[in-house]
Amino acid sequence: MATALTDFSKLCIHTMTTKPWDLKQCIKNYSAKGIHGITIWRNVLEGQNLRDARTMLDDYNMEVVSVARGGFFPSVEEKKRQAAMDDNLWAINQAFLVRAPVLVLVCGADGRQPLEKSREQIKEGIIRILPEAKAAGVKLAIEPLHPMYAGDRSAINTLAQANQMAEEINSDFVGVAVDVYHLWWDNNLQQEILRCGKNGNLLAFHVCDWNVPTKDFLNDRGLMGDGCIDVPQIRGWVEDAGFSGYNEVEIFSHKYWATEQKEYLEKIKNAYLKFT
Amino acid sequence: MATALTDFSKLCIHTMTTKPWDLKQCIKNYSAKGIHGITIWRNVLEGQNLRDARTMLDDYNMEVVSVARGGFFPSVEEKKRQAAMDDNLWAINQAFLVRAPVLVLVCGADGRQPLEKSREQIKEGIIRILPEAKAAGVKLAIEPLHPMYAGDRSAINTLAQANQMAEEINSDFVGVAVDVYHLWWDNNLQQEILRCGKNGNLLAFHVCDWNVPTKDFLNDRGLMGDGCIDVPQIRGWVEDAGFSGYNEVEIFSHKYWATEQKEYLEKIKNAYLKFT
Repeated sequence: MATALTDFSKLCIHTMTTKPWDLKQCIKNYSAKGIHGITIWRNVLEGQNLRDARTMLDDYNMEVVSVARGGFFPSVEEKKRQAAMDDNLWAINQAFLVRAPVLVLVCGADGRQPLEKSREQIKEGIIRILPEAKAAGVKLAIEPLHPMYAGDRSAINTLAQANQMAEEINSDFVGVAVDVYHLWWDNNLQQEILRCGKNGNLLAFHVCDWNVPTKDFLNDRGLMGDGCIDVPQIRGWVEDAGFSGYNEVEIFSHKYWATEQKEYLEKIKNAYLKFT
Repeated sequence: MATALTDFSKLCIHTMTTKPWDLKQCIKNYSAKGIHGITIWRNVLEGQNLRDARTMLDDYNMEVVSVARGGFFPSVEEKKRQAAMDDNLWAINQAFLVRAPVLVLVCGADGRQPLEKSREQIKEGIIRILPEAKAAGVKLAIEPLHPMYAGDRSAINTLAQANQMAEEINSDFVGVAVDVYHLWWDNNLQQEILRCGKNGNLLAFHVCDWNVPTKDFLNDRGLMGDGCIDVPQIRGWVEDAGFSGYNEVEIFSHKYWATEQKEYLEKIKNAYLKFT
């Protein structure tokens, strides 16, 4: 059984959830609504002085939960794999400068090569950027993505695979992000969440819902309560595994992005208390 | 290593692959192209006298590989579960009348209840229709569907789950259909295919490809060679598991349905020899 959620002290919003807003709007509006956890997507850091960003975050008493996202390691093209290295090092630097303890990794996949090959390149990539992550004090969270993304976005598609990789790399600076959207269907989820926590690898917990039917591969996620995921059940497992961090609301949704974002924040708060 | 495909003696086409055609057109055109395996989707049997259908199949020397599809057992509504029973009994009768040895089951899911509950109802449903299936000499093939369908189309989303259920029911008249589209991403696929064959449960093998990117949840499947699935590798595992039946081409594709279907059949034949 998940603990009751009676306030917003553990609520974190991903800036991508309120995509129409820039970083400043996210910070001001989240803070005004009593939400002090924020996960920053790198698109809102583009063209932004990062020290100014950090000052602004401090002024509004915001805690940066993580930066999203690094990763996309695999490619059949050596040049692209090298470009991914550079990009990941820059992402670690961004996370350091906004004082994010975690960088979320969407690991990547290249449909032109076997999944096993992509997984090797992911592991190699993580190991290569690990020294910089340690130096910056930024943990790397492997996020397993739904199998529907295995062709192009991630060759890590189950929590078992993410656990396995984190355990093999075996570093205090590599762990896993658990997202209900990607993992809810898996009948091994409870045991893999417990394994993840037991090994000290549970770094982040993302929530949203799965719409029935889902119409778009990327941008038709539901707000908690809209769909068929039993979020409280999964949160209970995550808590059983020892996790006491933020519940991060990460919703890509053309539908919600088209609505008034301040009203949407209220909806998120209601859904957080009722369906998370 | 899969055996080389040098002729079309093991090629079967699903009527849904050439959706613009009615049953007669499918039979005539497949046969004219030297293709004698057919899996009949029930939509082309609507309004069709089934004895006439069987005569036509015989006249063109067609072997019915299976009928698609029964299933959709779960619902929170008792009335709907009962309607599914009736529909499945009718599907078994249809399979019997066109002399199909197998009825493929798309098992169903109801997002209003937990996946575990839907799985229970699937198992109960299969057990309830099993006597009629036996009497008709029609085997029931549990088809695990991709996890992206867990909200509304199937609560059986891995080959491990399908194997488990078939083994629990433990009947010569219940087995599994392996479809590369649904299962290609699974890192346990090889071992689960071997398990399936070893237990005598491998009843059918479906092929197509996964487009990168995929744009539609239902009707954007690729022709073998279009996408990222290593079909020959999976066919090799299926053969290693003792399967020697048809390779069934099952492609739902708005793109291909919009093309001239006789030319499309030629493309399928080429893709069959080259990429299957």
